[in-house]
Amino acid sequence: MIVCTSISQFREERARLLAASETPGSLGLFPTMGYLHAGHAEMIRIARKENRLVAVSIFVNPLQFGPHEDLERYPRSPEADEQLCRLLDVDLLFMPSIVEMYGQQPVLSSVHVGMLGSHLCGTSRPGHFDGVCTVVAKLFNIVMPTRAYFSRKDAQQLRIVQQMTRDLSFPVEIVAGPIVREEDGLAISSRNAYLTASERSIAPRIAQTLRTIQRRVAQGERDVALLQREAVHTLEAYEGIRVDYLSFVDPDTLQPFTTLVPGRETLCAAAVYVGKTRLIDNIDVRAPASTEYTVTARGKR
Amino acid sequence: MIVCTSISQFREERARLLAASETPGSLGLFPTMGYLHAGHAEMIRIARKENRLVAVSIFVNPLQFGPHEDLERYPRSPEADEQLCRLLDVDLLFMPSIVEMYGQQPVLSSVHVGMLGSHLCGTSRPGHFDGVCTVVAKLFNIVMPTRAYFSRKDAQQLRIVQQMTRDLSFPVEIVAGPIVREEDGLAISSRNAYLTASERSIAPRIAQTLRTIQRRVAQGERDVALLQREAVHTLEAYEGIRVDYLSFVDPDTLQPFTTLVPGRETLCAAAVYVGKTRLIDNIDVRAPASTEYTVTARGKR
Repeated sequence: MIVCTSISQFREERARLLAASETPGSLGLFPTMGYLHAGHAEMIRIARKENRLVAVSIFVNPLQFGPHEDLERYPRSPEADEQLCRLLDVDLLFMPSIVEMYGQQPVLSSVHVGMLGSHLCGTSRPGHFDGVCTVVAKLFNIVMPTRAYFSRKDAQQLRIVQQMTRDLSFPVEIVAGPIVREEDGLAISSRNAYLTASERSIAPRIAQTLRTIQRRVAQGERDVALLQREAVHTLEAYEGIRVDYLSFVDPDTLQPFTTLVPGRETLCAAAVYVGKTRLIDNIDVRAPASTEYTVTARGKR
Repeated sequence: MIVCTSISQFREERARLLAASETPGSLGLFPTMGYLHAGHAEMIRIARKENRLVAVSIFVNPLQFGPHEDLERYPRSPEADEQLCRLLDVDLLFMPSIVEMYGQQPVLSSVHVGMLGSHLCGTSRPGHFDGVCTVVAKLFNIVMPTRAYFSRKDAQQLRIVQQMTRDLSFPVEIVAGPIVREEDGLAISSRNAYLTASERSIAPRIAQTLRTIQRRVAQGERDVALLQREAVHTLEAYEGIRVDYLSFVDPDTLQPFTTLVPGRETLCAAAVYVGKTRLIDNIDVRAPASTEYTVTARGKR
């Protein structure tokens, strides 16, 4: 594995590795903010299977943090990250400094994806997705990957990156990876490291609540407002839990649905504070199409 | 010359042409809005000398036109453009439709370059440079050029594209081309086609005024406000001429100077309405460094 800390070094090593292959090979990029966990490992394994070369970038991108967010205390473990990447047979590890990425002067350019980024996480984190798009565009231009991997856990980010890639014709295939969960259902996230023991013990309620919603929709519940009210009530019954949002949205437009239409793809996405830590999760809650539902309903009677 | 109207066709032909070459060759892109004139021809000749392959794109980009601007009546001459490109030995001509570039739905993504784009032409044309950056980013991703050519006539555009390319690490070298002028000094522009005969006869006053400023600065004039006042007065003495702006700016930051410091790079940039047609032009007006000036001044005495 080659570890690169500068853009020019990365470009040279990339060109060298690709030139060394007899057939033109694909390059998979998995962009991360480091503090790698089992969720990242799973994504690297997927990228490893699908590409001749695998690049992982580790960069805690200041542009996607708000002024009062956790940029400074965001957890970091560069040595362990490097070790894990080596173990998982990563070819190129890109770990640039902030100055290497953005220089000494303020960055003047930004990439903005309208509409998709203004609500859900965009409400609590204004400018967040512009920061994500800007660094992803820059990483695409540095790494020049064939495929880039993004987790479904960050559903809005995934959708926005897909849109940017299509709108700006980046020659990159966006691959959506699975949400990896702890045994108790909690979606694995670097931010789980912020949780105290007691917060950690109640955090799985988020995933449990989403699964309850999924089950209730499958059983025929169509009342979005009722499902939301119940879910928020259930979650906020725990001391220290506060729901930032819990929305039923079109997975394509990310616009909220007020009713559930059988057969229509629907995503239930939530951001929930556990103590001071903001965790996100989501689940597919497509209501079965009427025929599917009839069969299920009959089977249950 | 291969004429491509779709993104996928362009990508295929590009890959085929590059694969056909024995040594990996450079690709020069000259992005245009068509209605090609002697200024464009000069740029294509420069690109032809510097690259193994030359691509020209012709696309009247709706994103860079304001709602009350001249998108609909912008002059077009696709057959003549194609003929000229053939004559100048262009390898790839990319002429996509608006739907091919942006699809049927509104484009959600945009590239924004802060600060550099908000004044000068940005004042009269809000959103213009975001539209330019967005289409240039998209063209870079489609054409994947080694070098891209932009005229110094659009000085602000050139500077903004340079900044975007650097900030987002596009692997493209931006090459600045010369301002090509008619014999009477008028900067060649597709928009000159809008001028009536009488407007055409007074339009060269813009370039003449800029040259006068350049001469007066070389002779020792340092008073920006005076130079501006005189220039505007001279130009607006002509019936039908109205100055939109005439500014002395730092060519790097595009911020206006209120005084001229000897030896410091300075650009005098102007946008001037001749009738209803808005024309732009600019000239280097660096005041000679004190030693240079002393010599010149002595020589004159």
